[in-house]
Amino acid sequence: MKIGIADTTFSRVNMGKIAIDELRKISSIPYERYTVPGIKDLPIAAKKLLEEKGCDLVITLGWVGGTQKDMLSYIVLSMGLVMVQLMTNKHVIDVTIHEDEAEDEKTLMMVAENRVREHVRNAVDLLVNPKRLQKLAGTGQRQGYPDVGPILK
Amino acid sequence: MKIGIADTTFSRVNMGKIAIDELRKISSIPYERYTVPGIKDLPIAAKKLLEEKGCDLVITLGWVGGTQKDMLSYIVLSMGLVMVQLMTNKHVIDVTIHEDEAEDEKTLMMVAENRVREHVRNAVDLLVNPKRLQKLAGTGQRQGYPDVGPILK
Amino acid sequence: MKIGIADTTFSRVNMGKIAIDELRKISSIPYERYTVPGIKDLPIAAKKLLEEKGCDLVITLGWVGGTQKDMLSYIVLSMGLVMVQLMTNKHVIDVTIHEDEAEDEKTLMMVAENRVREHVRNAVDLLVNPKRLQKLAGTGQRQGYPDVGPILK
Amino acid sequence: MKIGIADTTFSRVNMGKIAIDELRKISSIPYERYTVPGIKDLPIAAKKLLEEKGCDLVITLGWVGGTQKDMLSYIVLSMGLVMVQLMTNKHVIDVTIHEDEAEDEKTLMMVAENRVREHVRNAVDLLVNPKRLQKLAGTGQRQGYPDVGPILK
Amino acid sequence: MKIGIADTTFSRVNMGKIAIDELRKISSIPYERYTVPGIKDLPIAAKKLLEEKGCDLVITLGWVGGTQKDMLSYIVLSMGLVMVQLMTNKHVIDVTIHEDEAEDEKTLMMVAENRVREHVRNAVDLLVNPKRLQKLAGTGQRQGYPDVGPILK
Repeated sequence: MKIGIADTTFSRVNMGKIAIDELRKISSIPYERYTVPGIKDLPIAAKKLLEEKGCDLVITLGWVGGTQKDMLSYIVLSMGLVMVQLMTNKHVIDVTIHEDEAEDEKTLMMVAENRVREHVRNAVDLLVNPKRLQKLAGTGQRQGYPDVGPILK
Repeated sequence: MKIGIADTTFSRVNMGKIAIDELRKISSIPYERYTVPGIKDLPIAAKKLLEEKGCDLVITLGWVGGTQKDMLSYIVLSMGLVMVQLMTNKHVIDVTIHEDEAEDEKTLMMVAENRVREHVRNAVDLLVNPKRLQKLAGTGQRQGYPDVGPILK
Repeated sequence: MKIGIADTTFSRVNMGKIAIDELRKISSIPYERYTVPGIKDLPIAAKKLLEEKGCDLVITLGWVGGTQKDMLSYIVLSMGLVMVQLMTNKHVIDVTIHEDEAEDEKTLMMVAENRVREHVRNAVDLLVNPKRLQKLAGTGQRQGYPDVGPILK
Repeated sequence: MKIGIADTTFSRVNMGKIAIDELRKISSIPYERYTVPGIKDLPIAAKKLLEEKGCDLVITLGWVGGTQKDMLSYIVLSMGLVMVQLMTNKHVIDVTIHEDEAEDEKTLMMVAENRVREHVRNAVDLLVNPKRLQKLAGTGQRQGYPDVGPILK
Repeated sequence: MKIGIADTTFSRVNMGKIAIDELRKISSIPYERYTVPGIKDLPIAAKKLLEEKGCDLVITLGWVGGTQKDMLSYIVLSMGLVMVQLMTNKHVIDVTIHEDEAEDEKTLMMVAENRVREHVRNAVDLLVNPKRLQKLAGTGQRQGYPDVGPILK
């Protein structure tokens, strides 16, 4: 079993390093890292990790600027990652930070770190402990910000 | 014959549990449940249920937040589910709740429950009773809210 | 030779019945009808009619609500139908009614009926009389509303 | 060698006739014409011309109305044509006229005629004289309106 | 090993020439150039370079006008390039200049030249020196404009 980690030089936070740190904390699953320039390069990076490097699941770590053009790249990234998954029958966990989702850089970095760590745990669960996710079904989990929780009757 | 049910930990309502409850009420068709983190993970979950778990039809249960970014994820989900269906030649019934489609949480929960139950019935009809759907053609059926009915001459 | 007709229970007009009526008026080509819940189910319905039911062409009859979310479903329908055609090398004629394209229900019903009938004729021409369409090239044909005609020099 | 020409009955200008006229002026390459109702039918028309009629390249001639819904059809056309090209490894030259891109009908017709003729020349060059295009690289060529030219140092 | 370079006659800067100049400065990898009319022709150009001309990676050089319609073409280009990569399992580096991203022509030309040169270096690194990109992970690299750098703790 192996997990792929794809990240970018565009990102302003070393998300790949955080992902590896979290993966080492919670499991001994081997990993392979692949760094590309920007988010539009992530779909092919994920596919190569799955098909050429023997990974069973990939975590992509994307950083999106705040302009309309960046948002278009994000759509392309997202559609591309769905295609990769459908072509390989394997999960790709898309961890994206939008540069405009926090007020200041300190908060943004904190959100990025939390989101990466929480999604690494999701990824490991998908591979080795899918029952944990089923127990959390419908409970309003969020990654990066606090969970919102379920709607109570 | 088997029905797949894919839901998320992001959802604020346990839509998977409601779907299973309804399925048990109206049929004895076996089911397989697969819980993933969020809606962008649903297309691959549906494909895996169809191709690896032997399901003949999948019901995906998605919960969409109220921001523009959530709406983009919804487009990606929808396009992905069309692709899954065209790649497998099987139906995937997409049940989506938009967090901003109701005024308050109580109404939202009621809409969610009704929509899930009505679409489970649609799904079962597609598999075992397609003539019932044909009888309802052009009658303005809705799921979650009251039917609007046909335009009368 | 066989024509597939895919319609929905969501529609407020029995477009499938109108299509069959028109088809019977102008030809003796056999047909197969397939009714699904909503427009996002039409791409797979069309593919099944072409690949599993032996149809040579499919007419899909879609009804789109007036909200932004309905418009997204329409994009997904349209992209899905293009994919079905490219995967099967067969035509799918997409007949869509937008609930907000007419002032009142009476007009909407008239537009729907005219559009269905005119597209059924287009579909039959594509199959058995493509030269008629070539004669109409560049003449500003419309379906549902009056033709606008060519720009005159 | 053969060129496919796909046009529509929706168009208000007989773009197919203009394309054939230009093709006859500049080459003796045989052609095959295929007329469909509207722009959403052009991707499958192009694929059929390439795969079933032995064409080596297709020119599609589309006419787009001025509403938001027409624009959505244009996106679907464009994405569909990219898919056709990637599935066949052949060029499809997309010539589109937007009804709202000129002030009056006379100008619109002139733009349409010029754009069709210039793109027919591009298509022939792609097939038999790719070096001419390379010489024009980065020179700000436009089709339908005057070239804007390169940015001068 | 061979790199493909695809550019357009639409561009107002000879981006292909700049790319070749940079490639010659930093490596002796052979290249193949393919010039097409506009950005919507770039996906098939890239696929042909990868599949018919033996290239291992392609750099596409696109120039996008400032209207809404140009932006749609840019989305189609981007989605098409993702598809090419997923179909070939090879990288395509998309270098795009938006005509409206700079105040004046002089700045635009400078941005174009810098962006092309920096992405040629990225492309060569992806092929022969992927470790350099990994060292730059999360450092806020930009192409065309100055790097923004990482967020500092």
